[in-house]
Order: sequence, then structure tokens, then C-alpha cells
Amino acid sequence: MFSGANLPRVGTYNLNVVLGAIQASKGTSRAEIAEQTGLTAQTVSVIVRRLIDQGIVEEGGPLPSKGGKPRTALRIIPTAANAVGIHFDPLGVSIVVVDLLGHPLARSHQDISPGLDPEALIAQAARAALSLLHDLVIPRDRVLGVGAACPGPIDQRQGLVTSPPRRDRWTEVPIKRLLEQHIGFEVTIDNDANAAAIGERWSGHGRTISDFAFLYMGTGIGAGLFLSNHIYRGVSLNAGEFGHVVVEPNGTPCYCGNRGCLEAMCSPAAIVKNVHAELALGRASKLAILYEEDPALVNHTAICLAAVACDPVARRVIDRVAEYLADCAVTIANTLDLELLIIGGRSINHVAEIYRDKMSEFLEARPLARRNHILRVAISDMANDGAALGAASLVLHANYAPDTAHLTSA
Amino acid sequence: MFSGANLPRVGTYNLNVVLGAIQASKGTSRAEIAEQTGLTAQTVSVIVRRLIDQGIVEEGGPLPSKGGKPRTALRIIPTAANAVGIHFDPLGVSIVVVDLLGHPLARSHQDISPGLDPEALIAQAARAALSLLHDLVIPRDRVLGVGAACPGPIDQRQGLVTSPPRRDRWTEVPIKRLLEQHIGFEVTIDNDANAAAIGERWSGHGRTISDFAFLYMGTGIGAGLFLSNHIYRGVSLNAGEFGHVVVEPNGTPCYCGNRGCLEAMCSPAAIVKNVHAELALGRASKLAILYEEDPALVNHTAICLAAVACDPVARRVIDRVAEYLADCAVTIANTLDLELLIIGGRSINHVAEIYRDKMSEFLEARPLARRNHILRVAISDMANDGAALGAASLVLHANYAPDTAHLTSA
Repeated sequence: MFSGANLPRVGTYNLNVVLGAIQASKGTSRAEIAEQTGLTAQTVSVIVRRLIDQGIVEEGGPLPSKGGKPRTALRIIPTAANAVGIHFDPLGVSIVVVDLLGHPLARSHQDISPGLDPEALIAQAARAALSLLHDLVIPRDRVLGVGAACPGPIDQRQGLVTSPPRRDRWTEVPIKRLLEQHIGFEVTIDNDANAAAIGERWSGHGRTISDFAFLYMGTGIGAGLFLSNHIYRGVSLNAGEFGHVVVEPNGTPCYCGNRGCLEAMCSPAAIVKNVHAELALGRASKLAILYEEDPALVNHTAICLAAVACDPVARRVIDRVAEYLADCAVTIANTLDLELLIIGGRSINHVAEIYRDKMSEFLEARPLARRNHILRVAISDMANDGAALGAASLVLHANYAPDTAHLTSA
Repeated sequence: MFSGANLPRVGTYNLNVVLGAIQASKGTSRAEIAEQTGLTAQTVSVIVRRLIDQGIVEEGGPLPSKGGKPRTALRIIPTAANAVGIHFDPLGVSIVVVDLLGHPLARSHQDISPGLDPEALIAQAARAALSLLHDLVIPRDRVLGVGAACPGPIDQRQGLVTSPPRRDRWTEVPIKRLLEQHIGFEVTIDNDANAAAIGERWSGHGRTISDFAFLYMGTGIGAGLFLSNHIYRGVSLNAGEFGHVVVEPNGTPCYCGNRGCLEAMCSPAAIVKNVHAELALGRASKLAILYEEDPALVNHTAICLAAVACDPVARRVIDRVAEYLADCAVTIANTLDLELLIIGGRSINHVAEIYRDKMSEFLEARPLARRNHILRVAISDMANDGAALGAASLVLHANYAPDTAHLTSA
């Protein structure tokens, strides 16, 4: 059932629309904002006045004249507010502090000691975040909140991890509540792929794109979906699980219960297993010596570096992974017809271009509607910090993104 | 870029919200509408008064009291307005006239004579539609408009079919303009799957569901997506092409350029080809006699009827199709996390239950988040008229559905 439009909220919505227009530009004026948003010049002036009074926006010098009245540049004051992002990954915890533009001011990373229980880890992360804020001399009242990203599935409403693959100790851990206790700020949680997508929306490739996906490749693979200018989470908050699209009907069994899932064929663990199998058969490879010394030395990073250096075994395995990912990209194009597909996450380090190029090749040749529109692929600029920066952006997004749902919330 | 909220349109939006609440109920009152929509009692009263004055809504008898003030039942007047739906399918043209509730008042179907050119066919369909309106004695000013549904891809903005698979003569045919010339009403066009989804939204299984898909199986296979209470069409209006998700990586080549697409493995043509291949090998089947007499007699309908009667060859082929469709349903669950999947279209006649049961079986066992939520499958009640009824609903939907995008159009 639809809700009626809620007039008192129109003001907040329009304020966020104006703020978004200023943020997306490199210097814009009141007149341009009115033109872009369809708001009247008077409404824009009133809103800009309020943003200036709140200390969020400032006037800069005059912009080049377009022949009419002189135009004053408007820009966000980056120091007006801050947010903290924390990414809990099976391999470590990353923490960033960002300014209002989503730019990182400080970061820290901690490996996870085996045996540390979730609550102790959360407490440790909270201390590290508070220490970063202290070092930056950021007063508490300038911190809008804390965002936390974790591998899904999560229950966003209850703030807990529901049934994390291969991480039994995290089942039903109430991350939101524990983190709030230890850090003393309000916490917003989401899965890593959604967080990364919101990060790109706030300060990356997705800033002016209405429909895009972030294919996040960490320990697993999942996508955050931005559809019609809003994050799309699905009815149980589990949309975007492209890691469990079957790409090889009789392929490797996946922990999810299915076989040949994209994630089961393309995760770092699968890549290592496939390269080890080839090396065990004695195939010619520069990795063979390392493998004989200790198979554990032929890890995901070593394989990706060897693939880029055109080692035949490593390259063959990575090329096959690139093809599976490209098949998935074609499925995304056929089913969602997006403007942009962003790829990122720790597992694409070194091989991101190989993956992007194969995806682009398939996307030009295979989707049904390729003559109408071709889905572009971009590599995230956020490197290993994507999910942590995204987690911080969850807070900025929740505070400042115009959301049409808010216009109609009863 | 976001547009600012548009105050003058809030009135129309809320009117459509109230109308939708009345339509979705079996008798509701002003107080209940206020409660459901979050609008004030006074706003609801003013809007209901306007709907009554416009002759769209009427007051019925008193509703059972809930202890407070007496409640007067409100209901839509079905005869207040009509719409025409026309479905252009490679096998024939279906035409329906519906009332304001989307219920069919009259229908007609015409086979397509081979060699008839698109404009002649469009003129014929227009004459048939005008004749139905004449027989029903519906005055022109009661007709809101005409909806047309065609197999995609279409260009909805320009109102043309862009590059229809296997129907070269329809390439770039300006259906909207030609049909408007011949019929004299405004025409809205969309692909068959989107039209069917909107039909379910207006008067079928999707009435109160925020996130669902209609998997439409006609000559081809495509899905209409309803996400967050709005039809989702994608940036080039080609979302939902689940018929071109690869289900068999080395499968049959598809006309789209890919191999092993769902459509290439599951279309009526593929089913007929696979059964013929088995019969040619002399496999035991009740269809063998027919096949010897004339292979053309073993058509899609004969095969589906034989499968239901447990003929081994027909049943094996249909069961394999059911598994491919069930794989696709799992992909839909994993990627979109919907509430409901509706299946329909001419090709599921007789075998709909076989398909639905296999889909439900896979959906309970394979999606990653199945412990959080299981995607339900429903068979459309609209039988062969789904796309034509949906085409008529395009008009009702365009006139009466609350669309948050309208709140912010500049």
C-alpha cells in the first residue's frame, strides 16, 4: 500500500537536493541549482541561506559570468561534519574517518588474531576508531555517526549478522548494539557490497549515475544495487547476491548448497585451489619452485602477480575467472539494464584490468539489447578501503541523500 | 541529479493514493484510508469528495461498526472509465476492453495472416478494437486510452519496436504513431512482460506486493520487474531479459548471439525440437504415431498435454525445461530478493503446475538467503489474455498509479 505525501518533509527533501547539487559540482551557483533541480530561484536562495547558517556550505569567489547577473560559487565545507567507517572482514578490520565529502582523513587496519571473539574484536575496533578521532582532534559533536560494513547476509533492522558463510562465531552477533556500547555513537550497518555502492554514490564513480551496481569481490562476491537513484535491498535485505548465480551447472559445490556459483568458481580460495591442482600435475610455471618450497607461498596475491607477468598457469586460471565474471556482467546487463558496473574489493588487486577488459569485451558482444545501450565497467578508485569508506558513507547518505520514500513515509 | 519536490503535484499524488486504497480493498472507509496512508482525516475527506464528484467513487451501505462513528463503505464505480488493450504477438493479435477495475468486458483474437504488413495489421487491430467499443456502447469520452504490448526490445519513448527477434519486418515500426492514427485515442506502449506485470499490479496477484516479477513466457521469455512499488525498466528500457540468462554454458546457440540462454533452451520452438529429436531416435512415446503421420502434429500444445499425461518423452523434455526455469527462479531470488514471482503467458498452458512446483522446490533449497525469506511462485490467473489485459492496465496505471517520480519531476 502507498503512503500519502508528507508535506512537512518536503523541506528536508529539497534541502538535501540542493546540497547534493552543490556536492556533485565543482562550484555551482544558485541559478544553476534552480535550473538543474526545477526548484524556484527563491526556494533555492532560502535553502542555501539555511545551509550557510548551518555552516555546511560557504560562498566562494565569483564564477565566470554567463552574461547575466554575477554568479557566486557555492561549495561544501568539508570540515563541517565527519563520519567513521568500519569494515569487518574475515581477514581484518579497516577503519577510516572521512569528512563531509567522503574523503578519508585517517585510516587504520588491524589483522584479526585467530581465536579473538567477536565482542573483543568489536571493542578493539571501537578503541582504534576513537583513537583516530582523538589524533585528528575532531570533537564528538562533529561526528555524525559510525557506519559498519560486514559480509552478508545481515539483518539491517536488527543490526546483526544472520548466518555468515564460514564464520560461525559471528552468527546472530548484534554488531550494531555492541559497537554502539563501545564507541558511544549511533551505528548504521550494511553488507560490504551495499556499503561500497553507497561510497561510490557519495564520492566515487556513481555520483551522478541513477542506475549502477558495485560488484564487490572480497572473500566472497556480492553486488550493491543502485536503481532509480536509490539503493535497492530487496524484501529481506538480501538482493544483489550475484556471487550465487550459477555460471557452471556442474561446477564446484558452494557452501550455499548450490553448485558452480560464481563465488565458488572465482573466489580467492577457488583460484588458489585451481592453481595448486595444476602445479601438482607438474605444469610449467614460474610458481613451481615456490610451490615445491611450500604450497602456502603460492597464495592469491602471488598468483595474481604471476598472472599479470603472463605466467601460463596463473594466467590461464585468472583468464577463466575473468570469463566467469564477464558472464555474470552479461547477466547483470540483461536483467537490470544499468548505466555502470563498478568492480572493486581486495580480490581484484593486480588483476582488475584483466577482469574489466574481459567484461567489457563480453558486454559489447552478448547482451540482448547491446545495440540500444552498452553497460560500462569501471574499476573502483577506493582500492582496499572501498568497504570502509562505504561504511562511512552510509552515515553521510542516511543524513543527506534525498530519498523519495521520505516524502511519503506516514 | 535529483529534482526538487514539486508541491502542485502532491495533490494528484495523494488523490491516486486514496483511489488505490479504495481499489485494493473490498469496501473501506474514510477512517481506514487515513490510517493506512498516513493522510489526515480532513485530507482524505476532501479527496473522497472530489472522487465522488468526478463519478469515480461511490458510497455504499454502512460497514460493520468498529465501536466508533458509523463508517460508510467506499468503492470504485467500475463503469466510470474504460481502457483498451492490444497485444501484438508473432502468432496473433489479442484485444480486450476493460473497466476501471481492469476487468475484461469484451475480447477478440485474430490470427496473423502470413504476409500481412505491420501497418495493415495495426489498422485491422484498430478496427477490431473500435468495433468492440461500439458493441459495448461505450462513448468515446469514457475511454481513457489504448495500451499496446509487443515482444521487446521496444523504444517506449519513441513508441517503436527496435529490433524484434525473428520479426525483421517489425524493425523500427512506429507502433504508437500508426495505432494513434488508426484508432484516434492516445496510445501507451510497452513490452509484453512489463504489460503483464502492470496487469497483475492493477487487478491480479501483485495488487498489494511492493516487489515482484512477472516471468512472461510467450514465443520468447522475459520478465517485468516491479521493485519498490514501481515498474523498473532500466536505463535503456530493457531490464528484465531473464530469457537471455545463460543456463547451459555450452547449450543451443540463441539468436541474441549467446549460447544456452534460458529462452534458447525453454521456448516452445526448443521444446518441439527436442521432442522431435527423441522421437526420430525411436524412443517409446504415445506421440510416436502422430509423429510418423506428420511431425507438424507434434506441436507445443500436443507435447504439453502428453507431458501432463506422463508420456515419458514429453515429460522428460518438460521436466528438463522446468529445471532450467527453476534455476532462473533461483537467480531471481538471489539477485532481486523479491516477495513474489508470477508466471504466465501462452507457453505455460497445461504445464504451469509442473513449472511452478519445480521452481518452488528449488527456491526452498538453493538461494543463499532462503533461511531469511523464500520467494513464492504464483501462476497468473489471466491465462492467454495476460499481455492484452496488461496492455489495458498500462493506461489505468499511467492515469491512476501514485508515482513518487511525479512528486519530483521538474
